[in-house]
Amino acid sequence: MHILVTNDDGVQAPGLLALAQTMRPLGKVTVFAPDRNWSASGHVKTLERPLRVTETMLADGTAAFMSDGAPSDCVALPLLGFLDKVDLVVSGINPFSNIGHDVTYSGTVTAAMEAVITGVPGIAFSLASQDKPAAVVTDYGPAAEIAKVVAQKTLEEGLSEGVVLNVNIPYLSLEAIKGIMVTRQGLRVYRDALDRRVDPRGRPYYWIGGEAPTGVNEEGTDVGALAAGYVSVTPLQLDLTNYKAMDVLKSWEWK
Amino acid sequence: MHILVTNDDGVQAPGLLALAQTMRPLGKVTVFAPDRNWSASGHVKTLERPLRVTETMLADGTAAFMSDGAPSDCVALPLLGFLDKVDLVVSGINPFSNIGHDVTYSGTVTAAMEAVITGVPGIAFSLASQDKPAAVVTDYGPAAEIAKVVAQKTLEEGLSEGVVLNVNIPYLSLEAIKGIMVTRQGLRVYRDALDRRVDPRGRPYYWIGGEAPTGVNEEGTDVGALAAGYVSVTPLQLDLTNYKAMDVLKSWEWK
Repeated sequence: MHILVTNDDGVQAPGLLALAQTMRPLGKVTVFAPDRNWSASGHVKTLERPLRVTETMLADGTAAFMSDGAPSDCVALPLLGFLDKVDLVVSGINPFSNIGHDVTYSGTVTAAMEAVITGVPGIAFSLASQDKPAAVVTDYGPAAEIAKVVAQKTLEEGLSEGVVLNVNIPYLSLEAIKGIMVTRQGLRVYRDALDRRVDPRGRPYYWIGGEAPTGVNEEGTDVGALAAGYVSVTPLQLDLTNYKAMDVLKSWEWK
Repeated sequence: MHILVTNDDGVQAPGLLALAQTMRPLGKVTVFAPDRNWSASGHVKTLERPLRVTETMLADGTAAFMSDGAPSDCVALPLLGFLDKVDLVVSGINPFSNIGHDVTYSGTVTAAMEAVITGVPGIAFSLASQDKPAAVVTDYGPAAEIAKVVAQKTLEEGLSEGVVLNVNIPYLSLEAIKGIMVTRQGLRVYRDALDRRVDPRGRPYYWIGGEAPTGVNEEGTDVGALAAGYVSVTPLQLDLTNYKAMDVLKSWEWK
């Protein structure tokens, strides 16, 4: 088995190292990640400029490739032939959760989507540490253990065509994690606010500020599972059609 | 009615001008668009740097705001309070279609998604000119007419919560367009290829090259509607859960 490991936080992120290490018992691991942080960068295909690929090393000496492209580019290049055949793409471990509407913004998740579009199973791993905003996320150990379990099971069972696994893991010890729950995508509540400031030369500039997002704590959702101390595994798809709305629209009289 | 007009090709794109002009009979129009091209940039929320907003002018003298943020930022800033209450966000007119899997990459579509996440109806408009790769897309007239019809109907009827309209219009005269068809998202066939080159200093670099994507021409899909000469209107949703796959995953024995 050949496993490609990437992320959206950049090649030097500790979550990437933890993910690469935990995948090693499952097969040959190749790391190919962005050279910088691309959080909240969305699903990118870099077509307007060429990409560089550089050989580098993770903190434990693991050889890695890094590119000046986005996370999804770091999946596209290997799968287009930069690397030999890849059997599984894993992305993460993101230090913050990717739940609810986060999934289309998330570089972690869109990297896994890119794999699935190309026909290779993709899994995104994120650590749900949001409720501890002041904490520096340092312990990826339990999340890495869970990631191994989920990746191994995925390699054994396979995924239906077009399915992306979005895995969020509570920031708890392995003993405190209650189990793995298969969930649907919940509802995020964004609390962004416009923060207008004035620069030293008197010109305004704008931050997207506000508080960290929360979620609607509903049973059966990613938000609910995490709140209850469970790992959330959500199967996502790339068909975004709202089939119910199709019937409504068909009843409209276009003039 | 206050209509926000944006795009992913930048404030000077002719498709934006055509869209702004065609929306004017429907209400007050404000243009807020990126200062450069963000095609295939995905769903972005710029949090790492502040954004600038500059007043500018379209080719016909229409006042417009431009920002150094992504298309979705150009929706977020106005809806977070930079502008008064907005009733509808329209994005486009993109010179190329956004169908099948394109929707998560597309700045045009993710701008409309950003509106819907914030609770404002959002519509993405794209012109399906891909089959004429050599042609410079110059005539946005018919697409603008269709955009007006779809926007007006949307303002009259409203959209269910969480629904984004993705509209693709054939690059044909109004007379040649056969009608409007409500569709589901079809399947894109990407034909990307890795194009390795060597720079003047002997270092390799990589283009994501290959041919333009095609699609699986199935009845009832966006691809099929366009191929048959119809406008494709696809209702998209932000819940990406694959509900069928949930049952499969629930049968897995996690160890």
